[in-house]
Amino acid sequence: MDLKDFTGHSQLCAMDMKELEELAELCRENIIRKVSSNGGHLASNLGCVELTIALHKVFDPAATPVIFDVGHQCYTHKLLTGRYESFEHLREKEGCSGFPNPAESALDPAVGGHAGNALSIALGIGAARELENNSGKVIAIVGDGALGNGISFEALNTAGYGGKNLILILNDNKMSISPAVGAVSGQLSKIISGRFYNRTRRFLRRTILRSPRLFRLMRRLDDWFKAVLLPPSVIFQSFGFRFFGPVDGHSLPELIAMLERIKELDGPLILHVVTKKGKGAPYAEEAPVIYHGVGKFEPQSGQLVASAGGFSETLGRWMCRKGEHDERIIGVSAAMIPGVGMTAFAAKYPRRCFDVGIAEEHAVVFSAGMAAGGKRPICALYATFAQRALDCIYHDTVLGKVPVIFVFDRAGAVPDGPTHHGIYDLGFLRALPGLTVMMPRNCSELELMLDFALELDAPCVIRYPRGNSCEKTLPPPGVLQMGKAEILRECSEGPVLWALGAECGIAEQTAELLRQRGIKTTLINARFAAPFDRETALRFSNRLQVVIEDHAGGGLGGALSECCAAVPGGGVLLFNWGSSSVGHGNVAELRRERGLDPESIAGRIAEQYNAFCSKS
Amino acid sequence: MDLKDFTGHSQLCAMDMKELEELAELCRENIIRKVSSNGGHLASNLGCVELTIALHKVFDPAATPVIFDVGHQCYTHKLLTGRYESFEHLREKEGCSGFPNPAESALDPAVGGHAGNALSIALGIGAARELENNSGKVIAIVGDGALGNGISFEALNTAGYGGKNLILILNDNKMSISPAVGAVSGQLSKIISGRFYNRTRRFLRRTILRSPRLFRLMRRLDDWFKAVLLPPSVIFQSFGFRFFGPVDGHSLPELIAMLERIKELDGPLILHVVTKKGKGAPYAEEAPVIYHGVGKFEPQSGQLVASAGGFSETLGRWMCRKGEHDERIIGVSAAMIPGVGMTAFAAKYPRRCFDVGIAEEHAVVFSAGMAAGGKRPICALYATFAQRALDCIYHDTVLGKVPVIFVFDRAGAVPDGPTHHGIYDLGFLRALPGLTVMMPRNCSELELMLDFALELDAPCVIRYPRGNSCEKTLPPPGVLQMGKAEILRECSEGPVLWALGAECGIAEQTAELLRQRGIKTTLINARFAAPFDRETALRFSNRLQVVIEDHAGGGLGGALSECCAAVPGGGVLLFNWGSSSVGHGNVAELRRERGLDPESIAGRIAEQYNAFCSKS
Repeated sequence: MDLKDFTGHSQLCAMDMKELEELAELCRENIIRKVSSNGGHLASNLGCVELTIALHKVFDPAATPVIFDVGHQCYTHKLLTGRYESFEHLREKEGCSGFPNPAESALDPAVGGHAGNALSIALGIGAARELENNSGKVIAIVGDGALGNGISFEALNTAGYGGKNLILILNDNKMSISPAVGAVSGQLSKIISGRFYNRTRRFLRRTILRSPRLFRLMRRLDDWFKAVLLPPSVIFQSFGFRFFGPVDGHSLPELIAMLERIKELDGPLILHVVTKKGKGAPYAEEAPVIYHGVGKFEPQSGQLVASAGGFSETLGRWMCRKGEHDERIIGVSAAMIPGVGMTAFAAKYPRRCFDVGIAEEHAVVFSAGMAAGGKRPICALYATFAQRALDCIYHDTVLGKVPVIFVFDRAGAVPDGPTHHGIYDLGFLRALPGLTVMMPRNCSELELMLDFALELDAPCVIRYPRGNSCEKTLPPPGVLQMGKAEILRECSEGPVLWALGAECGIAEQTAELLRQRGIKTTLINARFAAPFDRETALRFSNRLQVVIEDHAGGGLGGALSECCAAVPGGGVLLFNWGSSSVGHGNVAELRRERGLDPESIAGRIAEQYNAFCSKS
Repeated sequence: MDLKDFTGHSQLCAMDMKELEELAELCRENIIRKVSSNGGHLASNLGCVELTIALHKVFDPAATPVIFDVGHQCYTHKLLTGRYESFEHLREKEGCSGFPNPAESALDPAVGGHAGNALSIALGIGAARELENNSGKVIAIVGDGALGNGISFEALNTAGYGGKNLILILNDNKMSISPAVGAVSGQLSKIISGRFYNRTRRFLRRTILRSPRLFRLMRRLDDWFKAVLLPPSVIFQSFGFRFFGPVDGHSLPELIAMLERIKELDGPLILHVVTKKGKGAPYAEEAPVIYHGVGKFEPQSGQLVASAGGFSETLGRWMCRKGEHDERIIGVSAAMIPGVGMTAFAAKYPRRCFDVGIAEEHAVVFSAGMAAGGKRPICALYATFAQRALDCIYHDTVLGKVPVIFVFDRAGAVPDGPTHHGIYDLGFLRALPGLTVMMPRNCSELELMLDFALELDAPCVIRYPRGNSCEKTLPPPGVLQMGKAEILRECSEGPVLWALGAECGIAEQTAELLRQRGIKTTLINARFAAPFDRETALRFSNRLQVVIEDHAGGGLGGALSECCAAVPGGGVLLFNWGSSSVGHGNVAELRRERGLDPESIAGRIAEQYNAFCSKS
């Protein structure tokens, strides 16, 4: 068998169980091999191999849209839908991305990267089909973590619209990025561990399996038994869903038999599939949190290539240190405790660290409540997911001046691509009255900013990218003052370079390249995206001012432009991601492609500066 | 009794049932009187009078935070917490706002204006109390509509954190802004209409009420009965809540007895209270949708002062007209069908109009699914609530270029104040790659924009304020071109006035005032906030360009500044709400206060223009 020439559904239909199992093995090998070399999502994808194969065998994905929630379990789907070649370049510019993407394949009905959307998308497609009397199924695969997201619930609550064609596959691995929390997840455990129910069920099955009539009766009884013996599953039935399962998500025969069984039934249906995150790679099975999203690793042993902790680790260390004497310090995150560096804090102060599951909005509002109750919560989210809660930051903390410290980790462009870039929030945040928004240029400055934030009696956001700063020769950061930029180096002539956060490292390199060309520069660490340091900007308003930031339009560059456009005589040059789409792949490459590397920046500044000097 | 001198909880404790009922009458009279003269939320507040009084009698709000979800049922709470005087100026600059606000009273623990936050806030405060071993209750009052919001569900799902002190009062009036939809609401109906249960319960009560021991037994049996006879209520029990009720929300004795009963129990608890929206004003009881949020009306008859339909009506008419021949046209809203003008469309094409309840995120993603299924949904939301779904607009429509037409009604500043201003979204939207954002200057242009949007194969947002345009002498709008502004009047000298959407009317008045001062102007209707018309902006880059918009910083002014700051020689002057907080009250007054009325704008332009001319 060769995945290269795989033709998908038709080929699967012709395969027997042994061949299907070989195919699963092959997919699994490919996933481990490719993720170990290119990085990506390992554990979630390994957990979903058999389920995807069974779905593609029983349903033709060309007629039955399959929507993966969060999307980080779609690798097998990609391998089965003609993307073997581009999977070889997984997460590289020339290869496929790590998430479903309609631009890559017509068999990806929707983008997936933020949790909770699959059910709503599926209901939308289902409603459109109902209007055309098309009874073809629509399948949403939702993890037990993503099911706890508010959008999933909003969709469950209105599944009357578009649900007739819906099969919701509940991929229950007891995990989101970190272990799943909450009542829904708890209900699922109860269902699985419902021993009396399962024993009775097995007994009845064995006894009556031979008679088709009794078997049909058994099916009906099954639902009844479930309702009586297992009140927890009622939670789904209350939403009008018929509940099937649990099924072993790594048994192809069980999966295929169940899917064949429910294929013709009217929806909305839920099929509860139990899978193991990391299945087939012992190290990933054992530590699915670590092997959820990984960089390069050794495929046999799982040995990870060490990555610098940087900003996230600094946050964790600061929380542990400060938290010892200040009991008001609370950690809150949304299924990202390890990623944001809070593992040690959670271990040290379990009562003061809250993982609310993949529920960014609740994380923010819950933090607001904690702050109203006198605590000083640090609510840390990845920047891209924090977008989910922008309104809550506004409504629940800014309006009431509630002192929550928000931390946006992974801010800036990332290898995962469009679904995960954290480059769009500043335009919104900057407009909010009284919200302080800071970016540290290195880990020492992060500590200063956290100290500063703790003294504020108002909400603030601290944003930083993954990893560490790339600055080399800059002095250690000085004392922070509200809304004041830090002038790192001042020169009475030449362009003035503003950089936001870790971009100071890029600005430093740019300045060095300009120095080599004989152009002296002033170097400013903006520190605050809001409130913006108008005074400093206006002081240099008759010079060429340059803004370097890892953000789309409307960020710091917008602030400086709005401030200085009123003043004739100066010039402003912006280096940011602009408003055109930023793809996936190596970020340094993405930067070069967009002219955001030090060489390109220095080149354009030199050119503009000469033009500027000749004009003025 | 005089509300003026009302001292709150202590006074309530001393009152007997008759006095309490008189107090309820007094509150009701005040609410009707004041809302009829000042506008505000009528029906929701009338439904909550007895409930609020009972809560304030049984609990001391100084010790027991009471958090109103959405907040538009807090008027009685305001009257009982020392705000009688400021209530006389309800929704006026010098009076109290129509929503809970910690800045107004320490007895408002949190801001409320967007649905779904109360439970999360309450859990946050509860968790903070648990850490301090404070067992004082925290009360969240959530409507059955707001309970269907995703954040409520995220909070229910993790009520293990902070729920020990929680009493969730479910204010069940079968309505959000319009009738509540969805499974949860359906469950509640079933509970109420569970006749066998209710009859059995009444019988048992009557029979055994005299024996305290039997009464206690009855209480226990009650839960059991409920579980057996009323599986629907299990939905809450599955989340770990103990369920009490239903209670008649207009019977003070029943309410007080029940609250006394559950006061000492460990949470999380749910008390199901059945209320009638509009209670006490027959016209409002009959038409709670119309009397949800109202302008002035005649308090006896309910006769409303007619308000111009304007933009919302135009949308509705366009949908009805286009929808007749184009079956792809679908309406989607989130409990705002009447407000966004879709009532007639919904009546004409019930299968093609979807009210998903107060679930903005699901509305957006569901629309994305419909579009993926070949439809052309018009997803219309109030601008302030659309903030909830900014990430979904990005992730689920922008990334996949899914052609949903988003309509943001009530964009701009509104009398309701900070929780409801629609003035913060442009900075975010403008940064998104490939998203078209338009604002029409009048209703004819809205129709052109809708036609234009329907031809696009990508998502777009059309924003407009409530009501109508104020322009008087401008020519009818010409043909639309992607990303091109409309030059309404060009002059070879003088300042260049850009206006966004209905602000063209303000710009027109400003231009007239400048003309009277001898300053000629060029007048531009921006039409597109994104993509921004850089070409036109650069053409005028050596002039003084002025931007007038009903938005905070980072909007059109940001786009023009970013574009022109690079070009020395010109000047830019921005008129927007800036980044400081905008209060509640008459919008014309708010504008004057902030220098955004035509007189102030003209004055500042004249001043700057003279400075500009003398410099250049």
